[in-house]
Amino acid sequence: MRRVAIAASATSRFEKTTDKSIFELACEPCIDIIKNKEIGIDAVLLSTCSTEQYSSTIVAEMLGLRPKISHRIDNLCNSGTNAVASAYSMIAAGLCDSALVVGAEKSDSTGNRLVWDVTRGAFNFPVHWASMFAKAHMSKYGTTGKQMAAVSVKNRKNAARNKNALFQKPVSVEEVMSSKIIADPIKLLDCSRACDGSSALLLVSEQLARKFENPVWIKGIGQQTNSASFGKAAENLSSLDTASRAAKDAYLMAKTKPSEIDVAEVHDAFTILEIMAYEDLGFARKGKGGQYAESNKIAINPRGGILGCGHPIGATGVAQISEIAMQLSGKASERQVKGCKTGLVHNLAAAGSSATVVILGA
Amino acid sequence: MRRVAIAASATSRFEKTTDKSIFELACEPCIDIIKNKEIGIDAVLLSTCSTEQYSSTIVAEMLGLRPKISHRIDNLCNSGTNAVASAYSMIAAGLCDSALVVGAEKSDSTGNRLVWDVTRGAFNFPVHWASMFAKAHMSKYGTTGKQMAAVSVKNRKNAARNKNALFQKPVSVEEVMSSKIIADPIKLLDCSRACDGSSALLLVSEQLARKFENPVWIKGIGQQTNSASFGKAAENLSSLDTASRAAKDAYLMAKTKPSEIDVAEVHDAFTILEIMAYEDLGFARKGKGGQYAESNKIAINPRGGILGCGHPIGATGVAQISEIAMQLSGKASERQVKGCKTGLVHNLAAAGSSATVVILGA
Repeated sequence: MRRVAIAASATSRFEKTTDKSIFELACEPCIDIIKNKEIGIDAVLLSTCSTEQYSSTIVAEMLGLRPKISHRIDNLCNSGTNAVASAYSMIAAGLCDSALVVGAEKSDSTGNRLVWDVTRGAFNFPVHWASMFAKAHMSKYGTTGKQMAAVSVKNRKNAARNKNALFQKPVSVEEVMSSKIIADPIKLLDCSRACDGSSALLLVSEQLARKFENPVWIKGIGQQTNSASFGKAAENLSSLDTASRAAKDAYLMAKTKPSEIDVAEVHDAFTILEIMAYEDLGFARKGKGGQYAESNKIAINPRGGILGCGHPIGATGVAQISEIAMQLSGKASERQVKGCKTGLVHNLAAAGSSATVVILGA
Repeated sequence: MRRVAIAASATSRFEKTTDKSIFELACEPCIDIIKNKEIGIDAVLLSTCSTEQYSSTIVAEMLGLRPKISHRIDNLCNSGTNAVASAYSMIAAGLCDSALVVGAEKSDSTGNRLVWDVTRGAFNFPVHWASMFAKAHMSKYGTTGKQMAAVSVKNRKNAARNKNALFQKPVSVEEVMSSKIIADPIKLLDCSRACDGSSALLLVSEQLARKFENPVWIKGIGQQTNSASFGKAAENLSSLDTASRAAKDAYLMAKTKPSEIDVAEVHDAFTILEIMAYEDLGFARKGKGGQYAESNKIAINPRGGILGCGHPIGATGVAQISEIAMQLSGKASERQVKGCKTGLVHNLAAAGSSATVVILGA
C-alpha cells in the first residue's frame, strides 16, 4: 500500500457571516497551497452541505485546475473527514497522486437543523441531544456544569491565540456558568456557533511527499455509522459507540494507542461532547471525562476547537486535520505544541450518529 | 494492491415520475442485494443530486445497516461512476472490504438545468450544447441526422428488451427524423428524458469475492475534468477531450485496448454524444462515428442506454455499471451479449466537462 501524506494546509478566517459565496469561501485557503507548488493536482474533493450543483468542479475551474477526479462529498458535520478518507483511499489505491480536499460552509447552511429525524419530534436542533447527553453523563457519573465550563474556558483561551478563530476573547468559568440556558443544562457558552469558513489540505503520495518540507503522514483512519436518527444514535446516552469504534479501528491501523497521542482536535460542538470524547478515545477512563476536563494531559483543541473557532459544518473536519498537520509539522506558530509527534482528529456528525477518527504522524 | 470486484447489482424500473421519496427509490434495488448475502456492508455511498442532508446515512438506516463509512457523492450526471471510483479506492486501499454504492434520482432534480454556467448565457438546458456539438460534427465530418437517428433506433430497440427501461416501444429512423425539433439539429427523439430511478452495486475485496458466483472485476478507471463551464468544455466542439483522456487512463490501468471491448454502456444523453463517444473511446476513427452508428461492431448500450432507459441523473452511472456487470456475469437474460468478457462504461457530466471511463472484466 502506498503511504499518503498531508503536504500543505491552510484555513481561512472563520466569521459570523460574510458576503462571500460558497465558491469564494472554498477557493480562499487553496490559493497559497496551489500557487507555491510544482506538482499537478489530480483530484479536487469538495466537502460542503451547500446544495449548489457541480460545486467541486466549479471550485476546480475557479482555481484554474483541471483535475482528473472531482466531486462533492457530504455527510453533515463529518463531511470533511469523509472527504479526507476518500482522498487518502484514491492516492493509496493509485488512482491519483495528489488531491486537494476543500471544506467550505456558509453560516446559514441547511445542514444546521436535523429536520429529517422524526425520532426527535419537534426537538430538531442539535442542542436538544446535547442536553440529553449532558443529563445522562451528569446523572451516571456526577459530571458537573463547572467541568463542562472548563472545556469552554480552555478552548476559548486557545482560540484567542488563533487569528482565524471566530471568537478572539477568552471567557471565565463564571461567564460560562452564568450564560443563558439554551436547553438545560446546556448554556449559551457550552455551544458552538455556525459560521462562514473554509479550510483546505493537499494530500500526496509518498513519492510526491519528498518535494515538501515536513510532510505529515496519515497513519490511521477509523469510521463508524450507527444510524441517521437519534433513536439508535447513543444507546446508553453517556457515550458514543460510533466514536469508540472509529477510534479502535484508527488506533489499530496506526499501530498506536491513546497514551501515544500528543495533540488532538476533538469534536466539541458542545462542551459535553469533548468530555465524552476523552472517554471514547481512551484519554480518560469511562466516567472520568469531567475530571479530565479540569486537568488535561494532552494538548486538546489547540486551535480553539469548534467552540472557539466556530462551526462551518463542511469545513470543520478539514480544519481539524489542518490544525493537527500544522502542529505536527511545527508550523502552528503562537499555539505550537512543543515536541508533538502523533496527533488525532475526532469528528462527529448529527448527535454522534456517525464518527471519524484520523491519526496523523510527523 | 487489492483487487476489487462487483459481486451483485440491481436496478429499479425507471419511470417518468413516482410518488416515492429519494430514500424509497434508493432502498429499492438494495433490498435483494443485502438480504441474500452473508457478508457485512462496510460502506454505503449514495450518488444523487437530491439536496437532502445526511441522505446516505438515512438510506443506510432505512436498510438496517450500520456501515463504517457513509456519505453522499455528487457531480451531476457522473455522480454514479464517481461513487464507484471512491468505493473501489476504499476497498483497494484496505479501509473497508465491502461497499454498497447506491444511485438514486427524482425526475425533478435541480441537477437537470445548468444554471451556474454563465458562459452559456440563457442557454442553460443541456440540449443547447448538444445542438452545438451536433452542428460542429456535421460540419466537420459530414455526420448526418439519419446517422444520429440510428443511435436512437438502436437504443430504443434494446430498451424494448429491458423491462426496467422507461421506453418500451421501439422507434423507426423516420419517427426520429420527423420528431419535433428542440434545438436544431437535435430533435425530440435525439434526447434522453429525466426520470425517477435507482440502481445499486455491491463492491467487494478479492477475498470476499470468492463467496459470490461470477464476480466481475474492476480493471481500469480513468477520470478527467476540464471545467465546469461550456466555455472550456470542448475546445474543438466535435470531440470531448475529457472522455478521450479518461479512456486512455482506463485502458492503461486495465492493460487493454478498444479492440478488446465486447460490450459497452456509453453516455447517450443525446444521440450525438454516442457518436462522439465511439471516436473518443477509440471504437471508430475520428470523424467516422456517424458511419459507425449504422454498423456497430461492439454491443453498445444493450440495456437501451440513457435514450432508452431514461436519465435519473445520480443513478445513471451506477445503472450503466450494473448493466455491464450483469452482461459479464451472464445474468442479462433476454438482452445477454453472448461470450462477452471485457466491458466498458463511459459516463459524462455537464456537456462532457467531466468524464469517467470504467473497464470491467469477467
